Amino acid sequence: MTTPEPAPTADVPDRQRQVEDDLLNAVLASFRNAPDDRTRTVLRSLVRHLHSFIREVRLTEGEWQRAVDFLTAAGDVTTESRQEFVLLSDVLGASMQTINVNHDAGSAATEATVVGPFFVAGSPAIPLGGDLSAGAPGEPCWVEGTVTDTEGKPVPGARLEIWEADEEGLYDVQREDGRLAARGHLFTDDQGRYRFWGLTPTPYPIPYDGPVGELLAAVGRSPLRASHLHFKVTARGLRTLVTHIFVEGDELLDRDAVFGVKESLVKRFTAHAPGSPTPDGRELPAGRGWSSVRFDIVLAADPGAGAGPRPDADPDSEPDSA
Amino acid sequence: MTTPEPAPTADVPDRQRQVEDDLLNAVLASFRNAPDDRTRTVLRSLVRHLHSFIREVRLTEGEWQRAVDFLTAAGDVTTESRQEFVLLSDVLGASMQTINVNHDAGSAATEATVVGPFFVAGSPAIPLGGDLSAGAPGEPCWVEGTVTDTEGKPVPGARLEIWEADEEGLYDVQREDGRLAARGHLFTDDQGRYRFWGLTPTPYPIPYDGPVGELLAAVGRSPLRASHLHFKVTARGLRTLVTHIFVEGDELLDRDAVFGVKESLVKRFTAHAPGSPTPDGRELPAGRGWSSVRFDIVLAADPGAGAGPRPDADPDSEPDSA
Repeated sequence: MTTPEPAPTADVPDRQRQVEDDLLNAVLASFRNAPDDRTRTVLRSLVRHLHSFIREVRLTEGEWQRAVDFLTAAGDVTTESRQEFVLLSDVLGASMQTINVNHDAGSAATEATVVGPFFVAGSPAIPLGGDLSAGAPGEPCWVEGTVTDTEGKPVPGARLEIWEADEEGLYDVQREDGRLAARGHLFTDDQGRYRFWGLTPTPYPIPYDGPVGELLAAVGRSPLRASHLHFKVTARGLRTLVTHIFVEGDELLDRDAVFGVKESLVKRFTAHAPGSPTPDGRELPAGRGWSSVRFDIVLAADPGAGAGPRPDADPDSEPDSA
Repeated sequence: MTTPEPAPTADVPDRQRQVEDDLLNAVLASFRNAPDDRTRTVLRSLVRHLHSFIREVRLTEGEWQRAVDFLTAAGDVTTESRQEFVLLSDVLGASMQTINVNHDAGSAATEATVVGPFFVAGSPAIPLGGDLSAGAPGEPCWVEGTVTDTEGKPVPGARLEIWEADEEGLYDVQREDGRLAARGHLFTDDQGRYRFWGLTPTPYPIPYDGPVGELLAAVGRSPLRASHLHFKVTARGLRTLVTHIFVEGDELLDRDAVFGVKESLVKRFTAHAPGSPTPDGRELPAGRGWSSVRFDIVLAADPGAGAGPRPDADPDSEPDSA
């Protein structure tokens, strides 16, 4: 049950309320000539909620200035490889709520979660059973599963993009050396199966040296994300899925900084002692333990199937290793 | 009467609504340990309204991305002398609504309006009756009036900051030459009176070569502001007033780009033919007409009087020309 919203102006005298209503109505009316219906609808709703917020909290002029300063600071730290506005949306749950409203909670398909700021197009191709860590530090993790549609039919040639932080809590793009590591793509085999070596996910903080980090600190929230491994799965005629899997037992599952955890995405990562045999007979360094996890992926039908480019229409997407 | 807000999730199946409610409640709960009550209240209200907006319009992932791109572009054009986030707040009426909720509509004091992005601290001192145009192009305008408190008592030594665009629609800080012009400050005399030469205000657009300008264009709105002259008035023990006066008869009064117009601030600017005698006997160039306007200013009591620094506590604020 959602906490009920207080009426924004319950305690405000009539004359004052009238002034505030008149302004709101003037702003709403200013969009009357917008040629596009959807743009008009979205902006009017935005204006209504923005004004309700200002009126409900009786926002002070100092607070308004702090909001302007916050957005300015967010702009200042945003670069090609650092997106503070996405982080802001993430920590307010806006990214996840946008995903929720775009995915039918009653569907049999695998649930989606936030894309996060570290996806990179053009990741290395990995053969089935290959290792995408490319030397990034961490415990080896064997990941396997299937890709099917909602009727259980295997999907051969589905493209899986996988990316993750290493055990130091960093993605490759956060390092200075320009190397791609702990990311890659591969394709399901003719029975819709996939398998690869990655790294056992570990917790790491979202970047907290900017205004979003200051906001979290001011309200006593941790910047840590629950441990996870990112997937983006595309297949012809099916809806693209962007999701993570999370680690069963992780103490951060109920306080992920970006609210990305869904129960169905929490998976058992089985720990294997050093020296225990690996699924593919790979020899790991002496003393090195490993983990394994299974993730069976179900893709929804593409609501726009038939229209638009095929998910694998660009050359980079052709099966090159299946 | 405000247009009623549609219930955000009226058409959404129960299971879907539950998923969305659960997320909202998790985000609200994440602020439970915020040490400051006001911060918690403001952020929770912001989150409620942000999520209501996303759910009400069923924001698409593409629209979310466009919002991120918009804020990023706003950050990119924002500099020391260009504040796109303030413009955004202005064109959505958020700046004006913030002013509304901070000013009692029933007060006898002069009404406030938006500060805008062109106020500059450290403006030139102008003697009473002096000319603040400093060579900026435009028709001379004689401005005079009084500053009183809400009981009608004159306020001597009140500091008036005045700034305006020239007849080419530019503020001094928008030009490359670094000169200060069409801005200045002066102080009321011992009977609370003031007078100066400025420029007859003319319409001009807010900066529209950035994302806010694109937004206005996309919805068929003009970037033009109604003609106006800015005032900031400070006096010991009284509430600082930031306002404009507008020009009676201006066709833009009811579609000011930032919703800054209040009826009480619309003043009659009387046109005077070239050669007609000026109030102070000043000789204007041959063929040059001029205008005149009266603006009597009433300052509210300072709700925080006695606390904090005096409005004229900095050396720059001491009467130096009264």
